[in-house]
Amino acid sequence: MSQYLSERWKELTPYVPGEQPQNQTFIKLNTNELPYPPSPAVRRSITEGEIDNLRLYPEPDGNIFRQSLADYYGISREQVYVGNGSDEVLAFAFMAFLDRVQYADITYGFYPVYSGLFKCEAKEIPLRKDFSLNLDDYDAVTPIILANPNAPTGIALSPDVIEKKLLENTERIIIVDEAYVAFGAESVLPLIKKHDNLLVIGTTSKSWGLAGLRAGMAFGSPALIQDLNLIKYSFNSYNLNRLTNVLAAAAVDDKEYEEDVCQKIISTRTRISKELTELGFLQTDSKANFLFVKHEKIRGKIFLQKLREKGILVRHFDRPKIDEYLRVSIGRDREMDQFLLAVKEILLEEQNA
Amino acid sequence: MSQYLSERWKELTPYVPGEQPQNQTFIKLNTNELPYPPSPAVRRSITEGEIDNLRLYPEPDGNIFRQSLADYYGISREQVYVGNGSDEVLAFAFMAFLDRVQYADITYGFYPVYSGLFKCEAKEIPLRKDFSLNLDDYDAVTPIILANPNAPTGIALSPDVIEKKLLENTERIIIVDEAYVAFGAESVLPLIKKHDNLLVIGTTSKSWGLAGLRAGMAFGSPALIQDLNLIKYSFNSYNLNRLTNVLAAAAVDDKEYEEDVCQKIISTRTRISKELTELGFLQTDSKANFLFVKHEKIRGKIFLQKLREKGILVRHFDRPKIDEYLRVSIGRDREMDQFLLAVKEILLEEQNA
Repeated sequence: MSQYLSERWKELTPYVPGEQPQNQTFIKLNTNELPYPPSPAVRRSITEGEIDNLRLYPEPDGNIFRQSLADYYGISREQVYVGNGSDEVLAFAFMAFLDRVQYADITYGFYPVYSGLFKCEAKEIPLRKDFSLNLDDYDAVTPIILANPNAPTGIALSPDVIEKKLLENTERIIIVDEAYVAFGAESVLPLIKKHDNLLVIGTTSKSWGLAGLRAGMAFGSPALIQDLNLIKYSFNSYNLNRLTNVLAAAAVDDKEYEEDVCQKIISTRTRISKELTELGFLQTDSKANFLFVKHEKIRGKIFLQKLREKGILVRHFDRPKIDEYLRVSIGRDREMDQFLLAVKEILLEEQNA
Repeated sequence: MSQYLSERWKELTPYVPGEQPQNQTFIKLNTNELPYPPSPAVRRSITEGEIDNLRLYPEPDGNIFRQSLADYYGISREQVYVGNGSDEVLAFAFMAFLDRVQYADITYGFYPVYSGLFKCEAKEIPLRKDFSLNLDDYDAVTPIILANPNAPTGIALSPDVIEKKLLENTERIIIVDEAYVAFGAESVLPLIKKHDNLLVIGTTSKSWGLAGLRAGMAFGSPALIQDLNLIKYSFNSYNLNRLTNVLAAAAVDDKEYEEDVCQKIISTRTRISKELTELGFLQTDSKANFLFVKHEKIRGKIFLQKLREKGILVRHFDRPKIDEYLRVSIGRDREMDQFLLAVKEILLEEQNA
């Protein structure tokens, strides 16, 4: 910290992203990436002309990508906002809409960080004992942000439960972060046509396999989208680079590929979940591309370490209520088989210890 | 504006970027882009492996690009910060360091926007009558941000003038935005080794011809860089996408190409500047990749319109002191010849009107 840092930030705690090792020696199940490459259409969309045109600023609204999303979801381009990853979209949404907010005590780790950064008054609402999120626990006036499915639990709410909360008070905005929705949960996105107080946030990082491209999006009434644009044009007009605009659109246009990889993830998740249950693991009912698991015989932190020694990275959150759990991203079948093998070895070692 | 927008933003005025037409029918001299494509090394750096790896999050520190910049400038990686275009870098620098600030009344249009967005108390210091910036006009305690060369005037200060101001008060930070430095001005970057209160901001959008890629950077003491990282990791950990990291590094590594295109721009600028003087234009001594010109016989706004009718886009700022001027980016020689032809026609039409 330099002496020039503003006093405002002396207490700021940043987000800690999952490890990104620069070599490929690990089986990487720690940051919920897709184990499959993005659609071949992404590669085909990079032309020499696109590269030469990098000398020109992007068209600032990201309209190629926006139009693909509008077509995909059957909405208009004016109901779509795009940005430099869903984290940037979330940051702008916090700035635009959330002077105060309620969110779960266990959820995406960036929400408390944004509350600190933007001086947003935050109320943390405890999840129930079984990690379920009950919207009856949230007051009727304060804006709400929720991840659905939630992270790192993977548990999903159904749209009708969220719609009931939207109707409770139409003066209050609810932001639903659907990063993981494509792996088996139901999206609230169609509800933006009926409810002006709903903002839905999405990402191409998970089901479209483009975590490295940084292309996130928001969906809502044209007025909400304009508000996000007000912040964006006051922060970074050209926040989406030319290649991201084109490549993300190409991925979204290849619906078949996305459906196919999501089905593969769901099928692998189902299989691994069953095997882990048989090995004595407790787990949530995850609708995301990860499992959230614990085993009575071995502490989360030690399990994390032992898996790492066997070349497998998973995620552990060293905080109350969830420090016995591991979050395990769903990889390719052969990667998950190696994970299971390592798990069995570790359990055996514990037994013999 | 929706009813959900925070009261904080009811007065916020966003930045207005220059027009980005989506067809190629205009000669585009309005947003200071390089008229030449980026180095061929940029194209070569895109491999199939890079595209497949888009499924993975980026390495969050952008170390490939940082290392190239460190090598280019002969400094260490810890003295380099990289972000999603220099606008994002500027935004983070405002957040980190500028609770109060002084800047010129005529300078980059985003500074007042950031002051509004981040509730930074701003003092606008008038340029002198000849558009020169005199640091004696700035107080000795308030942080300063200046564009050097300044925009849209193109006038540059020499490093020793800035160093004098750095020494005046080492408790006060000075941020020097060097977006246009490669076209004939002298950089203050070597001074970061001596002065902990200097932050230098750069971009690949101009001399490296990568405006569409969004790759900006900052240089300063490791402590200043850590402060920028504190903000970045509280806002968007993965702000630089994988391709930007690799492509921007490839451009920076090809030093010869950059020097070559900068020489071309300088030589074209010198020629066009001389021709405009002969046509009766007044202009500043621009060290940037644009000229800032006016003609007594025709108002700036009308000139802008008439050039547009002839298929040429330039930039006009409809604000006091500079509304008689046009900012004309330096294009390829043949584009500038067409510009000169159009100018001559317009002047002739005026004469005959």
